Amino acid sequence: MTSPAFGKAEYQARVAAARKRMADAGIDVLVVTEPANMCWLTGYDGWSFYTPQCLLVAQALDEPVLIVRGMDANAGKVTTYLDHGNILGYPDHYVQQPDRHPMDWVAEEMGRRGIAKGSLGLEMDSYYFSPMAYEHLKAGLPNCRAVNANNLVNWCRSIKSPAEIAYMREAARIVERSMAVGIENVSPGTRQCDAVAAIYDAQIRGAGGVGGDYPAIVPMLPTGIGASTPHLTWSDERFKTGEATILELAGTRRRYHCPMARTVSLGKPPQKLADASAVICDGIAAALEAARPGATCEEVEQAWRRELAKSGFEKESRIGYSVGLNYPPDWGEHTMSLRPGDRTVIRPNMAFHMIPGLMLDDCGIEISECFLITETGAECLCDFPRPLVVKT
Amino acid sequence: MTSPAFGKAEYQARVAAARKRMADAGIDVLVVTEPANMCWLTGYDGWSFYTPQCLLVAQALDEPVLIVRGMDANAGKVTTYLDHGNILGYPDHYVQQPDRHPMDWVAEEMGRRGIAKGSLGLEMDSYYFSPMAYEHLKAGLPNCRAVNANNLVNWCRSIKSPAEIAYMREAARIVERSMAVGIENVSPGTRQCDAVAAIYDAQIRGAGGVGGDYPAIVPMLPTGIGASTPHLTWSDERFKTGEATILELAGTRRRYHCPMARTVSLGKPPQKLADASAVICDGIAAALEAARPGATCEEVEQAWRRELAKSGFEKESRIGYSVGLNYPPDWGEHTMSLRPGDRTVIRPNMAFHMIPGLMLDDCGIEISECFLITETGAECLCDFPRPLVVKT
Repeated sequence: MTSPAFGKAEYQARVAAARKRMADAGIDVLVVTEPANMCWLTGYDGWSFYTPQCLLVAQALDEPVLIVRGMDANAGKVTTYLDHGNILGYPDHYVQQPDRHPMDWVAEEMGRRGIAKGSLGLEMDSYYFSPMAYEHLKAGLPNCRAVNANNLVNWCRSIKSPAEIAYMREAARIVERSMAVGIENVSPGTRQCDAVAAIYDAQIRGAGGVGGDYPAIVPMLPTGIGASTPHLTWSDERFKTGEATILELAGTRRRYHCPMARTVSLGKPPQKLADASAVICDGIAAALEAARPGATCEEVEQAWRRELAKSGFEKESRIGYSVGLNYPPDWGEHTMSLRPGDRTVIRPNMAFHMIPGLMLDDCGIEISECFLITETGAECLCDFPRPLVVKT
Repeated sequence: MTSPAFGKAEYQARVAAARKRMADAGIDVLVVTEPANMCWLTGYDGWSFYTPQCLLVAQALDEPVLIVRGMDANAGKVTTYLDHGNILGYPDHYVQQPDRHPMDWVAEEMGRRGIAKGSLGLEMDSYYFSPMAYEHLKAGLPNCRAVNANNLVNWCRSIKSPAEIAYMREAARIVERSMAVGIENVSPGTRQCDAVAAIYDAQIRGAGGVGGDYPAIVPMLPTGIGASTPHLTWSDERFKTGEATILELAGTRRRYHCPMARTVSLGKPPQKLADASAVICDGIAAALEAARPGATCEEVEQAWRRELAKSGFEKESRIGYSVGLNYPPDWGEHTMSLRPGDRTVIRPNMAFHMIPGLMLDDCGIEISECFLITETGAECLCDFPRPLVVKT
């Protein structure tokens, strides 16, 4: 059993913030389908997002309405503050059928509640809102005008409350311990899966007296030639001397993430890997110096890029993103990115994961920091040595 | 580093099977976005599905074309048999932007390859194909006619090859061990997170000499009142005497799943829970007896329902589904369901997870079997006692 992670007043303030953004965008009803947004607004927490579900936030209704699969309605009662009259389960015969969709039922319920009209905000690029859901919802709501409300709630999440920051600090303790366990277990002759088993144990057992939640991404463990690409998971092959392994992990507490990446070389690394480590460490330090209230996201990236330009390395992809509460498949918030063109002004209590990896032809390296914006600058949530770890 | 899980000939036969179904449906180009379908057709395996990606299967092209984010193109080279000319990475500036979408780039690439015309099959209810992806793809392909090809490849996956079945048997060994560890760790005073840490360790360390892969669903662990709903995860509260805990876990090998659910009562269970256990065990036995080539999915469910009718219990939801290769958030294949109205005829080498849970008002119970259809009947992949485990 899991009680809500925050007090009712905090959830209500979040709903008010979402309503304000809805009003600014002229939206009457918002159909929230992203699990992190549903959780942020109500506390709803269960692995039920593999069947369609949503939270209706309507200007005309006092409280949001949670609609999930019938068997998951009790999960709403256990994990949210919502009045039980606002927690609804749709019948099971809507699940995974070619000729009907749970969104048909949602549209009918909107009619029953008198909110099947006006401007309808939809999270158009949400993982758990499919084109079929979109088509059925539009067909069932002929008096609504669909508008793209993608990331509307995600943007509300970008500035963290003190209670959210407290969870992220707990997550930081968990990832420090998990990374230490991971580095210890990347050794010649150890199977990759055995190292990951030890990492998972640390991630879930937690640290500092609190248990860990499941991270939105499994441990990433590209090794050898596989480390030339960042998102491979493990196999049961054994670590070999002469190869480098990237570890990208998160500590997670009540769905709040603190990610960290480090790289381990078994044996003396090739010179280019040692050089890349030095460039990344210099670049992270420069970017952290640039990250402060009033700076823009792209200015932080420029500070990194100036360091990078001194080296022979190149990097096309962004170096970081906003992070916090999330569910699989991603712990990033999909709002701010540290990259050219993102002119979002940084404000206190934003949180980022900066991960300037360098993928080379036949190996790769990632080193990252998760940091919080303070009143005057940036504070790394973790205290963990950055350079390439060389085990000889 | 991970080599493909199957030989090139098996992948090519799968592509041929998909092309056949495409031809039957009049589809010229299929845009495969479901990670399990991409993996099944090519071997592609990486946690990269949080950014848009797809596999293009075109009647006019010899081989499928894999399109992923730029940094993930090397993952395609490492994990698939595809010619490197058919593995493409789109530029990073398409990632998570309000004014463009990776599907714009996909549409342009289809034009470059001469396949931007005719009937375009789309997986309309796939988790990783959003309405925005759908709209951008349609806008970029004015000479294509979009048709719903949802589950087209999933249906190809419903009958398993000998090599796939071998992986599922390995997964069965892993879940037997993981469940034993889970039951051992559900004890009064133990924190839920510590039990899950031990389960994860077993799931990933593997069994029988092979390592485990990450399951598509995290360990489900509803306990006490939380067990009145099936999809809650853990907290760091402690297990209590007098409460029941449901464990729903999978063993996973090269992305192939063998799921299992069992329920543990700490202390003497209430009579209704003991009764529910007996009904479920009888119902599973009856349904397994009914599961054989030539029977329909709904006939299997009817055998369960006849047993259920002798008791005072009721159940609205389906009791099972097709299972095999998968990625988060679901190990189910979204094709066959064991429920009224599903008249799919069962054939040899299909695999199902039958999980007739009973959610009561203040507790719940789940017991399941993952089974394979043989030439003459059904074979449970695991050998593990079914009844409610009572620890006193």
